[in-house]
Amino acid sequence: MKPMRYLSGLNPVYKVADILPQVNKIEDVEKIAVWDAAGRVVARDVIAPHDYPPYPRAAYDGYAVNSSATPGKFRVVGTILVGQYRRDIVLNSGEAAYVTVGAFLPEGADAVVPEEAVKREGEYILVDRKFEKYANVDPPGSYVRKGVVLLKQGTVVTPFDVVGLLDVGITTLYAYRRVRVGIVTTGDELIAPPIDPDTASELVLRGKVIESTGSLVAWYIQTFMPYVEVREKIITGDRHEEVRAVVDRFLKLYDAVIITGGAGPSEIDHFYKLGFGGLRGFRMKPGRPTSVAVVGGKPVFGLSGYPISALHGVIRIVEPVLRYMANVNKAPGHDWHYAVITQDIQGEMAQIVRVKLEVTESGLHAIPIKARHHSFTEPDACGVALIPPGGVKRGDIVLVLTYRDIRRG
Amino acid sequence: MKPMRYLSGLNPVYKVADILPQVNKIEDVEKIAVWDAAGRVVARDVIAPHDYPPYPRAAYDGYAVNSSATPGKFRVVGTILVGQYRRDIVLNSGEAAYVTVGAFLPEGADAVVPEEAVKREGEYILVDRKFEKYANVDPPGSYVRKGVVLLKQGTVVTPFDVVGLLDVGITTLYAYRRVRVGIVTTGDELIAPPIDPDTASELVLRGKVIESTGSLVAWYIQTFMPYVEVREKIITGDRHEEVRAVVDRFLKLYDAVIITGGAGPSEIDHFYKLGFGGLRGFRMKPGRPTSVAVVGGKPVFGLSGYPISALHGVIRIVEPVLRYMANVNKAPGHDWHYAVITQDIQGEMAQIVRVKLEVTESGLHAIPIKARHHSFTEPDACGVALIPPGGVKRGDIVLVLTYRDIRRG
Repeated sequence: MKPMRYLSGLNPVYKVADILPQVNKIEDVEKIAVWDAAGRVVARDVIAPHDYPPYPRAAYDGYAVNSSATPGKFRVVGTILVGQYRRDIVLNSGEAAYVTVGAFLPEGADAVVPEEAVKREGEYILVDRKFEKYANVDPPGSYVRKGVVLLKQGTVVTPFDVVGLLDVGITTLYAYRRVRVGIVTTGDELIAPPIDPDTASELVLRGKVIESTGSLVAWYIQTFMPYVEVREKIITGDRHEEVRAVVDRFLKLYDAVIITGGAGPSEIDHFYKLGFGGLRGFRMKPGRPTSVAVVGGKPVFGLSGYPISALHGVIRIVEPVLRYMANVNKAPGHDWHYAVITQDIQGEMAQIVRVKLEVTESGLHAIPIKARHHSFTEPDACGVALIPPGGVKRGDIVLVLTYRDIRRG
Repeated sequence: MKPMRYLSGLNPVYKVADILPQVNKIEDVEKIAVWDAAGRVVARDVIAPHDYPPYPRAAYDGYAVNSSATPGKFRVVGTILVGQYRRDIVLNSGEAAYVTVGAFLPEGADAVVPEEAVKREGEYILVDRKFEKYANVDPPGSYVRKGVVLLKQGTVVTPFDVVGLLDVGITTLYAYRRVRVGIVTTGDELIAPPIDPDTASELVLRGKVIESTGSLVAWYIQTFMPYVEVREKIITGDRHEEVRAVVDRFLKLYDAVIITGGAGPSEIDHFYKLGFGGLRGFRMKPGRPTSVAVVGGKPVFGLSGYPISALHGVIRIVEPVLRYMANVNKAPGHDWHYAVITQDIQGEMAQIVRVKLEVTESGLHAIPIKARHHSFTEPDACGVALIPPGGVKRGDIVLVLTYRDIRRG
């Protein structure tokens, strides 16, 4: 057998790194609202502009007092509910204010006595023991200190980061604009919805193929590369001029082009005919015809028409290039994982514990981190571990809900 | 300290199973197109209605011949490209037809001679060696045999299943309708987009809270429970009458109601005031106020107002109940996992291999399965393992892209 055209000089998959220097990275930066930021790539380190909480904050429903006056008797002079801003209330000696969880303590108070722990007598409360400074209180700056880096440049913002940033009053960040991609799915045999399902089924039995490769590629991008926008997805026949016209248009409009189908050994070979050169075929199975060329800084990918082969090409070749273009250092994840916990955790109750994940030769390790209670944005954290009632021993396997990609440390 | 109201008799988390018999499972079944089925729960086993391919199918570009006449000389009488249906072409003795990958072979042919392996002489080809029956051919029924169960009742359809079913011409299936949920996020302290981000930030420093708990709950549902539809998400203040009115309306319209916030020990305690009874508080940390009651077969969940506490409640209490209501046996997943491979895989090329996953005391194990080339729908498979160039040894750690939930075997 003479070698097939695309097999003459297949590239090892690591060769994809060679084309990165020719590819334009995204440089456009936008200021966006944090609640719209999930999936976006951080363009400038997100730094806390203030301490949070700005004042001592009640961690319990009860009475705000000055700890140095406990035990003692206090007159209740007001109420501050969570969400209220009452800097007008100032406690003098012997005074207390009722506060609910999350409320800022009034000036003059530094501790909360739980409501169950006082004896109420008319407008007075009796506190029968000593409460230390910041008892039942989150001190100023305990969630986040001004100047701390919360998200590093290159991190993909996750829904957990959104929660953590909003929690401490950070509402904007700078993000790179998304990478814009056009997908061309080629093949005379393709049919695509909307179409009557029964008709579609009959057509498959007569040799037609219902388009699903392009859809699977788009699904993988949406799921694992939220920083990439599939702007257009077009199905064409196998006429090369038609394919070329779409590719030319996509190269004008978008940052990258993905072609699926028509990559086989037969006469239909769009990637080859486009004449862009590049890396033609990789030593991978399935997916040998996977190809990539760079045209004016923009990558053009050729993928197999078969779903699993195309997926393999996306994972090995497309994803590393698009991640590079998007300036991603820390990609997102979203699933449950099994991991080995690195320390004992005690407790009779079912718990959830924030963890850092590390990949070793023996698999995934979950390292518990001491987290500020309300905030998810711990720069090192990448998941929450489920601890069963009764706790776990170091070395036990636990389930971890992750929000960063475990593929990179 | 006297116990807080909701702490008087916290339930162990496993007690949530006790309420399941009171909950109405979804019984409505719809016939839907497979391309719309991702995330839906299969209501009747999906059984292959026909063999696929229906005829021998070319696995290679080349010449369709009758194997018993090889080696030999053949006259080329026609061409069949993938997607064409040419049952009119019938090969007589000594005849061949040119075919492309994926094309059905004409009657009279049972093997494909690769185009590189023939010598062409005008309208004749010379084949100089023996080709066996079904050489370079996918025989009828080799992807799927009529009568085989491809997806079992209770399986959540994944994008991989969609690809696999369409590939063999299965275009409809019966699915349960989605579970419909309404979310009520309560709290006088809440502010929510659309709002000017800088104003929002100032308000947080004055004690307000930007709504993110309800959004995180909705994100978890969308990501891990695609068979659940969040039909409405409403933010209310803390006035109990307002909350009650929304809950009453949601109970009329939807299958389940989730309330977040107002579940603390203070006077604001909507779940308690609603008077539905049920399981009030669980032995879990954070998230002790998590509660559930069943009203006319519909669950009403009470969650903490804090994001991480609410999330813990969703994972431990809400998800098992909604999964039960939705008739789910096999939930979906979507991420990369590390797993121990259970057998050697050889090969110089980078490979992707379908695997079954099993959870053992030492973590996740990936068991390679012999898969029909094009189809993803292997009833046992739940992922594809990335095999590096050079192969792996049994016991090595590999990355697996999973599409089923690893939490259940």
